[in-house]
Order: sequence, then C-alpha cells, then structure tokens
Amino acid sequence: MTRTLEMFASLLESGKWNRAAHSRPEPNASDAIGPDHDVRSMLIPLRGVVIVFGASNFPLAYGVCGGDTASALAAGCPVVVKEHPAHRNTGRLLAQIARDAIKSSGLDPDILGYVEDDGSDTASLARSLVEHPNAAAVGFTGSTTIGTTLIKIANARPIPIPVFAEMGSVNPNIIFPGALASRSAEIAKQLAASIAARHGQQCTCPGIVLVPSNDRTFADTLEAELAKNPPRRMLSPNVQSSYEKAVAKVSKAVGENVATHAAPDQTLPIILKAPTKAGLSLPEILETEMFGPAAIVLSGTMADSRSAIEKLPGSLTISVWFDHSDRETLDALLPDLADRAGRIIFNGVPTGVRVAEGMVHGGPWPATNRPESTAVGPRAIERWCRPVCYQNAPRTSLPRELGSVGANPRAC
Amino acid sequence: MTRTLEMFASLLESGKWNRAAHSRPEPNASDAIGPDHDVRSMLIPLRGVVIVFGASNFPLAYGVCGGDTASALAAGCPVVVKEHPAHRNTGRLLAQIARDAIKSSGLDPDILGYVEDDGSDTASLARSLVEHPNAAAVGFTGSTTIGTTLIKIANARPIPIPVFAEMGSVNPNIIFPGALASRSAEIAKQLAASIAARHGQQCTCPGIVLVPSNDRTFADTLEAELAKNPPRRMLSPNVQSSYEKAVAKVSKAVGENVATHAAPDQTLPIILKAPTKAGLSLPEILETEMFGPAAIVLSGTMADSRSAIEKLPGSLTISVWFDHSDRETLDALLPDLADRAGRIIFNGVPTGVRVAEGMVHGGPWPATNRPESTAVGPRAIERWCRPVCYQNAPRTSLPRELGSVGANPRAC
Repeated sequence: MTRTLEMFASLLESGKWNRAAHSRPEPNASDAIGPDHDVRSMLIPLRGVVIVFGASNFPLAYGVCGGDTASALAAGCPVVVKEHPAHRNTGRLLAQIARDAIKSSGLDPDILGYVEDDGSDTASLARSLVEHPNAAAVGFTGSTTIGTTLIKIANARPIPIPVFAEMGSVNPNIIFPGALASRSAEIAKQLAASIAARHGQQCTCPGIVLVPSNDRTFADTLEAELAKNPPRRMLSPNVQSSYEKAVAKVSKAVGENVATHAAPDQTLPIILKAPTKAGLSLPEILETEMFGPAAIVLSGTMADSRSAIEKLPGSLTISVWFDHSDRETLDALLPDLADRAGRIIFNGVPTGVRVAEGMVHGGPWPATNRPESTAVGPRAIERWCRPVCYQNAPRTSLPRELGSVGANPRAC
Repeated sequence: MTRTLEMFASLLESGKWNRAAHSRPEPNASDAIGPDHDVRSMLIPLRGVVIVFGASNFPLAYGVCGGDTASALAAGCPVVVKEHPAHRNTGRLLAQIARDAIKSSGLDPDILGYVEDDGSDTASLARSLVEHPNAAAVGFTGSTTIGTTLIKIANARPIPIPVFAEMGSVNPNIIFPGALASRSAEIAKQLAASIAARHGQQCTCPGIVLVPSNDRTFADTLEAELAKNPPRRMLSPNVQSSYEKAVAKVSKAVGENVATHAAPDQTLPIILKAPTKAGLSLPEILETEMFGPAAIVLSGTMADSRSAIEKLPGSLTISVWFDHSDRETLDALLPDLADRAGRIIFNGVPTGVRVAEGMVHGGPWPATNRPESTAVGPRAIERWCRPVCYQNAPRTSLPRELGSVGANPRAC
C-alpha cells in the first residue's frame, strides 16, 4: 500500500495522469474542423463517493487500503470501503490506521469511510451502498455472481453509475510443441508453484492448461509437483465451499472422481485431466473458475488447442510457453489471444502482478465488465475520472494544469 | 467526413492514439512494485462489429459516414450502420459512396455494412443488431428513451457490450450580473441565433437560460430576435411531435400557453419564461429537453441561479456569460459546473463543435451514459478499443507499435 501510494503521489506531481490536451485556434490549419475555438481538456474526479468492496483473498492489495482505494483517493474522490466479512478485524484496524495517517497529513479523515460487514446481510448492505445518491462509482473484486448483481443495481439507479468489477478468470496456459518437447518438467514445476501459491486463491491462478500432446508425462509431473504441497485451510468456509462446488462441476464434466479435502477444513491441490476435444463442447470445463489450487489439463493436438482457444472466455491473463521452434505458430495465434485477455505472458506464470504503467490488470467479460480499464498501475486512476473541456476560458479561470499547457501548442 | 477521416488518418500515422506504455524492468527502482517484469501495453480494437445508430438530425456528422463510423473504422473495427428512418435515401447513397471508396482503397467494402430501416419495426431491428453475437459495441445518438432501451438490451446479453449513447441535453446558459448589465442585447442576439440555428434541432441547442435579474429586457430581446426566424418544417413528423410534447410539458409547468406551430407542419421558435425559483422545485423545467428551437428563461437573483445550478441534470455543455466584474463569482462556481457538463463555454454559444483533441463532446447522465468518453475529436477512437499488456514478450512478437517503444525507457 505504501509503495502504491508513493506511485500515485509521484503520478500526481508529474501531472501525467490527467490527460491534459490543448487545441489552440489554428485559423488556417487543415485539422481545425468546425469553429476554431481554443479548447483544452483534462480529467477531473467523478462527483461523489467511490464505493470499494474488499475482496476475500487480499485484505491488503484489494481491501481497505488496496489499489481501488488508493487510486480513487489519488483521483480526488472520497472513498467508502465495505470490507469483506472474512476480514472484519483486519479491515477495521487498517481503516483506523489509514484514517489516522490521513488526519496527520492535515486532511479530513472522513475522505476514507469504513463500513463493517458482519456477514449477516451482505446483500442489503451492498445494495444500500450502491444505491446511495452520493455514490459516484463502485470498485469490486470477487465472484461473477456478486459482480453482476452489483452491476444490475448500479444500472437500475435513477442516475446509473459505473461499476468496475473484477470477477472470475480461468487464466489459460498454452503450451506449444517445441517447449513441451524440450522442457516439460521445468514448465510443470513453474505451473505447479503458481497454482499452489497462496493455496490457489488468486485471481491470476492458472486454471486451464492446454497441452499439444497425449503424452502424460507433463500432466503427471504437474500433479506430482502439486501433491508436494500439503492440504491447507482456505481463506473462509465460503471460499472452500465455492471451491468444492466448482471442482465437483468440472470433475463431473470430465468424468473424474477427485477428493477435494483431506480433512473437513483442509483442502487439497487438484489436477484434473481430459482430452482437449472434450473442452471444445463442454463450457463447464472451459468457463468454470475453480477458485483455489486446481487446474484442468486438456491434452490433444496443437490443432485441438487452437480450437479450444476460440472457445475460451475472457480472462485476466493468458500464458504462452514456447521455444524458438514454436515462434511462427505462436505469432499467428497472438491476435486471437489478445482478444481474450488483458495480459499475455510469455514463458511465465500469470501469478505476480507488477504495479507499473505498462500493466493491464483487466480483461474481457467475464473477467471484468470494463475491459477498457486496469485495476493495477497508475492508469487505474482513470476509472474514477472523466474529461472536461474548457472552451475559450480565460487563463486564470483554468485549472492550474490546463493554464500551464498554454505555452506549448497542441500539448497533451 | 473527409476532414474527420483525414484527422484519424493523421492520428493513426502518428501512433498517438494507442496509448502505448512500456515499463522496463527496474531491479532497484522504487516504483518497481511486484515482480520486475518487462510490461508493455497498447490499445487494440474490440473484437467484433461496431453497431452505429444514425441520428435523426445530422445524416452527415452522425450518420453512415459520421464520427462514430469514422472513429470505429480508424480503431480497426468493422461497422454496421442502421441509419435513421428519416434518412433512408441519404443513408443508402452515402453507404454506396463510402463502400466504393473503401473498395477503391484496396480494402474489403464489407468493413462498412448498411442496414436500411423503413421505420416499420425499428425496435425489433435495433434489438436484433444489439443482440447479435458478433456485435462488440454500439454507438448511438438520439433520445434518452431509445438510448436507455439499447443500453438495457446490451447489458442483458450473455456477454454484455458497451453502448456509447449520446442522449438529451438541456445545455444551460448562465448569465452573470456584470455581463447582463453591460451587454444584455448582444448576449440575447447570440443566444437567439444559436437557438434558431438548424431550427434548434442540435444536441447542443441552448435549452435553459439562467438570468440573475427580474428585468424583462433580456428575455424580451431574446424573444424578439427569435421571432425574426420564420416558422419551418422540422426534420421529421416524429421530431415535430416530440418537440410539441416537450414544449407542452414545460409550458404547463410554468403556466404559459404558447403556440408551437404556425401551420400543421410549420413549427415556431419559442421562449418560455419563469421565475428561477420555480425551476428549483420543478424537474419538468430543468430536466426536459425541448429538442427544437425552444428555450426557457429563468429569472431571479444570482443566488437563485446558484441554487438552480445544483439541480441541473448532466449536459453536453454549459455556457457562462460574464465580464470582468463577474470573475470571482464565476470562478467559485466552475467546479460545480464542471461536474455537470462535458464542456464549459466561456462567453459563447454551445452550438458549433470543434473537432480537435482538446474537445469533449460528452457529459454526465442523462447527456450520455459514458461521461468518460468523447464522441468528437481523435479520442473518440478510444471508445472502440481496450488495452492489452505483453509481459516479457520477444521484441519480434510484439505489435509493431510496441516493439519500437523499447528504445525509450518508460516511453508512453
């Protein structure tokens, strides 16, 4: 959080965030279309409060003091956070620390409000926040079910407001023939570590692996590596129950019978296996996020993988594992992959998200409902802004940021 | 259209449109948060067809070959236009000219499709287009009623798609005391010309005028100037019928009885008058767009104007008319005005939209449902795009635009 705040502080100082543009009158220029006014624009914060819903899995990165809160405060919007009921105490503590810090900076601590959710009636609480007349926008990280519910509530308001919902993602990993032939064990080890990290409870956890061969070596190595991780408790009973349901659904679709837990509250990492062709006709396989340490390995030919790619739902990420001999096949597929994810990872796991300007943490439906935005990196601030144009304004009436671009014709 | 296309051609050549960003690995830098990957991102076109709904009023600027079509083609999306039934012949002709031009450029003419609407079942036709699985986004310019219907259809799809709807706007004009005292006749003449231009059938036509005085001179001048314009036919019988209904609604709210037409198909320009305080409690006055040559003048004190501003709905534009003595009052109000419009015009009429990078043709609900976007200017292209991040990609696998930013650390 501190480093994320530092990033936004540096961004605000640089002025790069506001997308300032200045089109000076150009009486004879060919691009002066329409009346030749002086028009300058920049982003301003939305009017009202940004409602942030904390996630179940990352009380620091996606909670009271997470990226949504930091970017909304940086934009200039007050924030009210409804923390996930799984993190009541953590959330309350973080909110108090943050409010004290805000106060000691000379700002009003009420720019950050905290709503505690004891879990007894989350639906009503969420609705009352999204329907509140002062709400300007919503940031949500969680399941597709709850995300779509919040979107519906926001759209039904007398004045609809935007919801930026990061929902489920199956994060496909596509292995190419050359890479499989030359380093299947190495790739399997990296994937197993990524699936098992944080017991799989990450939005970028690999959920589907497409393998261009019926050889079982890769899948067996993956399974063996994963089995080295002990059974663990999940973040909450709800997370465990959802995990077990999703695994059961995919297991049933592929006709496998797997144990999801070692003890009532100790879940196991799981690899399911099926022919890629099965995935082509079964949406349960391709579209069900098993939020937890589970992935399905779909094996077939590279042609099968290509057909499966056409049916993949939108994801936050797609990883491609290749070597030099795969480059032509890979490059031909890249446009199709770019249409299905916010981030394409070359020879690497999807877990681990760098906070930087070049990052896109987003993606097509159902991964998010706003694929034009990112939840991570400095451009996350733009979710809470809109542009305003000042036409023929006196220099001294302009926001400071626009007054100073005047010296530079067509600055932006 | 030609000049708009030239603008987009120049934009594509410059590469400025794509928002390319490159965050190089920075092992020791304080802003390298998270794993230190090389991440580059840029905008790519949405996958699928952009559906454009032509407007009733501007068959050139908002029709087959208008800004929505031009920006979507520039983004790289194929387009299907459903022209307004009021412009069947114009639309068919334009589509044929455009398709011939596309073909003679060596491109597939089917990147621009044309759907003719004879008006017999526009609702079903619109629904079938927005629900089509290949539709990626929708551009619409028209009424709030139809805009909200299209938004609902798009949100209810299995995979929702964005609708960029430009709907109704009352375009308030706020006159400050100093300007009124020094040049009320001059302002009234400019406003009358703006209201009467194209017989008022423009999305930026002034609809509300707030005057900080009970003096009738300003309103009478405005009315007299407007009366110099002869009665005219409106764009279509539907436009006329909507105009008459809206004027009747506002007239009833203010207790005035006005004639809206001189002959069955000849409508009159109209000025309605009421005390500003009436507007504070009557949403019919402040929120009803009378699409046509009509405005309501609300007179009271400057304090009344300020209270009315708080109740104004979102608009495409707000104009402020001031002189030097008004500057302090104006500057104090600017943040509130910026929250209510996409463009603030200083001492000028709202009609006449410059096509330039600094322009914002958009605004808060109900003027549009996507106040973060603009329908005019080069940034209109961004409506049909989303960013994709390439993590640790080989230089030769990157899109050309991202391969070339590598030489410049942190280029964007």
